[in-house]
Amino acid sequence: MAAFTKEEYEQRIERTKAAMNERGIDLLFISQPANMNYLTGYDGWSFYVHQCVLVSLDQKEPMWLGRGMDANGARITTYLPDDCIRQYADDYVQSTVKHPMHFIADVIKEKGWDKKRIGVEMDQFYFTHRNYVELEKSLPDATFVDANTLVNWVRIIKSEAELEFMRAAGKVAIKVMDAAVANINVGSRECDAAAAIAAAQYSGTEEYAGDYPAIVPLMMAGEATKTPHLTWSGKRYTADEAVLLELSGVYKHYHAPIARTIFLGKNPPKLMQDTARTVIDGLKATLDFIKPGVTGEEVEAEWRRAISHSTVVKEARLGYSIGLNYPPDWGEQTISLRPGDKTVVKPNMALHLIPGIWYDDVGFEVDASIRITETGYESLYEYPVEIFLK
Amino acid sequence: MAAFTKEEYEQRIERTKAAMNERGIDLLFISQPANMNYLTGYDGWSFYVHQCVLVSLDQKEPMWLGRGMDANGARITTYLPDDCIRQYADDYVQSTVKHPMHFIADVIKEKGWDKKRIGVEMDQFYFTHRNYVELEKSLPDATFVDANTLVNWVRIIKSEAELEFMRAAGKVAIKVMDAAVANINVGSRECDAAAAIAAAQYSGTEEYAGDYPAIVPLMMAGEATKTPHLTWSGKRYTADEAVLLELSGVYKHYHAPIARTIFLGKNPPKLMQDTARTVIDGLKATLDFIKPGVTGEEVEAEWRRAISHSTVVKEARLGYSIGLNYPPDWGEQTISLRPGDKTVVKPNMALHLIPGIWYDDVGFEVDASIRITETGYESLYEYPVEIFLK
Repeated sequence: MAAFTKEEYEQRIERTKAAMNERGIDLLFISQPANMNYLTGYDGWSFYVHQCVLVSLDQKEPMWLGRGMDANGARITTYLPDDCIRQYADDYVQSTVKHPMHFIADVIKEKGWDKKRIGVEMDQFYFTHRNYVELEKSLPDATFVDANTLVNWVRIIKSEAELEFMRAAGKVAIKVMDAAVANINVGSRECDAAAAIAAAQYSGTEEYAGDYPAIVPLMMAGEATKTPHLTWSGKRYTADEAVLLELSGVYKHYHAPIARTIFLGKNPPKLMQDTARTVIDGLKATLDFIKPGVTGEEVEAEWRRAISHSTVVKEARLGYSIGLNYPPDWGEQTISLRPGDKTVVKPNMALHLIPGIWYDDVGFEVDASIRITETGYESLYEYPVEIFLK
Repeated sequence: MAAFTKEEYEQRIERTKAAMNERGIDLLFISQPANMNYLTGYDGWSFYVHQCVLVSLDQKEPMWLGRGMDANGARITTYLPDDCIRQYADDYVQSTVKHPMHFIADVIKEKGWDKKRIGVEMDQFYFTHRNYVELEKSLPDATFVDANTLVNWVRIIKSEAELEFMRAAGKVAIKVMDAAVANINVGSRECDAAAAIAAAQYSGTEEYAGDYPAIVPLMMAGEATKTPHLTWSGKRYTADEAVLLELSGVYKHYHAPIARTIFLGKNPPKLMQDTARTVIDGLKATLDFIKPGVTGEEVEAEWRRAISHSTVVKEARLGYSIGLNYPPDWGEQTISLRPGDKTVVKPNMALHLIPGIWYDDVGFEVDASIRITETGYESLYEYPVEIFLK
């Protein structure tokens, strides 16, 4: 029941082991949910308790370790044989005397991995400071090294099967934004629009079942358009209010984010119109520039050049890599389109370009979710690029 | 625009400072999103980047520190004055050379807090090991102590205003389970049922706008009923399949979880019926036992006693404290109903009792979300307790 073939997971493990070898890591301890899924297929909402996937250079298959009640979930969703699934008793959960890392350290000892160089994801959520402390205490002969985004970087080039999932997510994204545009009207409640958006996300298309996004609908109206990460309330939309939307289509945890701006009236403020024109043209110029061989910072520089005639200022990064993810973020934490990013763009990377602008009195959002082709890019969806006047 | 009055936040800060004093903590560093919200009102989906709330014994108001683009979100959603909101530049985000903790340490130095005893949440997601390492490196004169669930324990007794939110969540919970029962039918897709559930969660009632739950709908059908934390796919429900549902009504991030079991047919397997009878009776006996003065482990012992005549075995904890929360968990990480928990139950605690049973061939879930009263308990919702036959 894993989402991909066993061969695909084995290739991922092989590339992960190559990256471990390069960095002198014998054993990899992975707790980031997308990385756990990528390596094994594991797909459960159990990341609120400690769990991990272990990849050892001296063992073919990775191992899943987690809470007892979730072990059957691992049996159902991963490609792993049963002896690679290990479960801890429930009294380890949020205990003040025991810690799940003690159990995991015991398995590491049993496997003879306790004198190895162990890579852990030091700056990933779901790997707490306490995890590190307990592991270090329980495995005094091990050497711990940072493997923070090791698997994230293995994920950056998407397989054909992954790209099919992302194109499916793109099809869902169109339905999601359609639901938003149809349901955001003067007098309707923000929460009812959010409900329509979520229903479109979860339902998906007839062919592709939707999934939950790594970020809930971000939908800022009125005063809230000066910031990008608020959600909704019971407030009713009012006339001449702008609404910024950052949403996503999702298929089996693969994302195609989609951001657009609605204005509930016929005459958006001039600053908003001017900003929209600059941003839309700048995004188009940037997309025309993207192709294999350019770097992350060169893409951003092209954007900066394209808007240099205007007063638009965008301090935040222009975009980032996307693909598989779980809450709290659909960004992959690899390439970031900003000064200093020397990552060379390659075919089958997937990027989300989101030149959002949040001034104190007006905001504007639009985006593009793309795959890099041999010569340029492919959009994950086609959707009008404009201010939606309603 | 914060959800509660300034006075309520001030009382929370006062109780937090009292707990800090007791534990010899001068400065509290909080990154758990529910704790950040509890102390300041902050409500944005920005916890995928590093951010925190600082509470110092020598300053009246707490401070919010986060990413530049989210500072306006803090201005909109918190009760804090502007000089208590500090923002870091975007090039700190997921950088390989800078870290947001450097910025936060600079503010701590500026405020003269760098020689203090600093409490950090060592086992909370969103406080990574790297956070600790960078803070320690940047603040060599500080002493770091564990304040892992300090604010969680301050949250355990709910105010009248919070209880109103939880009762509102209970009203939403009824609509959510109604949507599930109505939309789970032989031949319909799991994802379409999930869509109806999410729409009910987000939309809420006419009076109370819904919100996103800290856990997405958990809905296991067929083989998946042997584990509790899976979500949905595009599979169509088939005849004589059981469906386990763990959902929640939510109002302004306060939760009223609701779990029930559907059987798509007229004749559930005998083991399922027997299990349901035992669990439903056991839950009732346990609820009748709960009142101020009993301990967490006594509640669980009563459950164990009530089902001791049967073959039902429940290894996992019976329940836990609920209230305000954000993904990935609606559990509060304070009281856990299980052996060893000596927490004394008090009025205005709120508990989720979920005696879920996941055998290899059958599962059954039912629950109760309650508030402790002076003499017993109050249910956050009334909903039939039975196997729903469809």
